[in-house]
Amino acid sequence: MEYYAVPIAKLVEEFQKLPGIGHKSAQRLAFHVINLPMEKVQKLSESILEAKQKTRYCSVCSNLTDIDPCPLCSGTSRDKTVICVVQDPRDVVAMERTREFKGLYHVLHGAISPMQGIGPEEIRIKELITRLGSGDVKEVILATNPNVEGEATAMYISKLIKPLGVKATRIAHGIPVGGDLEYADEVTLAKALEGRREI
Amino acid sequence: MEYYAVPIAKLVEEFQKLPGIGHKSAQRLAFHVINLPMEKVQKLSESILEAKQKTRYCSVCSNLTDIDPCPLCSGTSRDKTVICVVQDPRDVVAMERTREFKGLYHVLHGAISPMQGIGPEEIRIKELITRLGSGDVKEVILATNPNVEGEATAMYISKLIKPLGVKATRIAHGIPVGGDLEYADEVTLAKALEGRREI
Repeated sequence: MEYYAVPIAKLVEEFQKLPGIGHKSAQRLAFHVINLPMEKVQKLSESILEAKQKTRYCSVCSNLTDIDPCPLCSGTSRDKTVICVVQDPRDVVAMERTREFKGLYHVLHGAISPMQGIGPEEIRIKELITRLGSGDVKEVILATNPNVEGEATAMYISKLIKPLGVKATRIAHGIPVGGDLEYADEVTLAKALEGRREI
Repeated sequence: MEYYAVPIAKLVEEFQKLPGIGHKSAQRLAFHVINLPMEKVQKLSESILEAKQKTRYCSVCSNLTDIDPCPLCSGTSRDKTVICVVQDPRDVVAMERTREFKGLYHVLHGAISPMQGIGPEEIRIKELITRLGSGDVKEVILATNPNVEGEATAMYISKLIKPLGVKATRIAHGIPVGGDLEYADEVTLAKALEGRREI
């Protein structure tokens, strides 16, 4: 015996494929959608398709965009001498939220991970080196994640770009603002100590 | 400054409208969708629209269905002398999962709640009474939720149907299976005591 009508069962199944959504949440979402007015359901359905159809990778920085080159690359107010290298388009969003960085970005779409068989050729390092060829860029900020893969990637890129006369910097590790020393892990605390500055 | 490309921002906004999905989850879902292959995105988008377009309320039991009357109402193997009254289509799914109930259902789509201005006319009680008119039904099981609104609704319906010569029963309250007496609230425990049976 099927518990749901077929279209509902299908929708529950589709929702369940999304990350972080189990059977109960999928069921809740499906019944929510069915109870929405038709125009709202259409809007949801269309925006899913449109987001996929209209976005592509920026030919310059590889960020997700609907206009190529993306507004960040083509913007006149951005500092074209600094490139911030991140692993993922979501990291660009996180960096932009700080409102502190006014340079350009480069999205690698991954990190070097020999364990997962991801070598330097699998991520967009070649494209970064090509960008540096123009000679405008003075500094590359390596903002990959602070884990083994991210560190390895940062190290690898820094070794590639130093011979080109471009400064390579790494974002600081330390205690998060609002964090508690007591609960910080020893590696982070050691990094915070190592990176101490005169006040 | 917009952090996302417009189609992504729109999708994040749409996902955020769904129940239990905040900004971070919406962002995660949106980027997940963009990274899916096109055919999977189409499938998701279509199943949302289809679930809404193809489902309607069963003209007999008011459950959500794609075929009218629904398979539960038109099924020959179901016991047509018992109707289980529930508040929501999800409750039908929950009841069916027990594999213990072989009768018919009636979905009220709500419960009487004077606080929220929902009177007996706002929910599908009239339709239930009409169904009882045929004389086939011998028992109505009131399986509304065990809260103030559900109890009031069960009480109201039982008073309506008793004069029709139909037996009205209420599902049992008690300690959930696998539960712990120590942690049971006093009302539930009192109900469990009250509903004790000889073994």
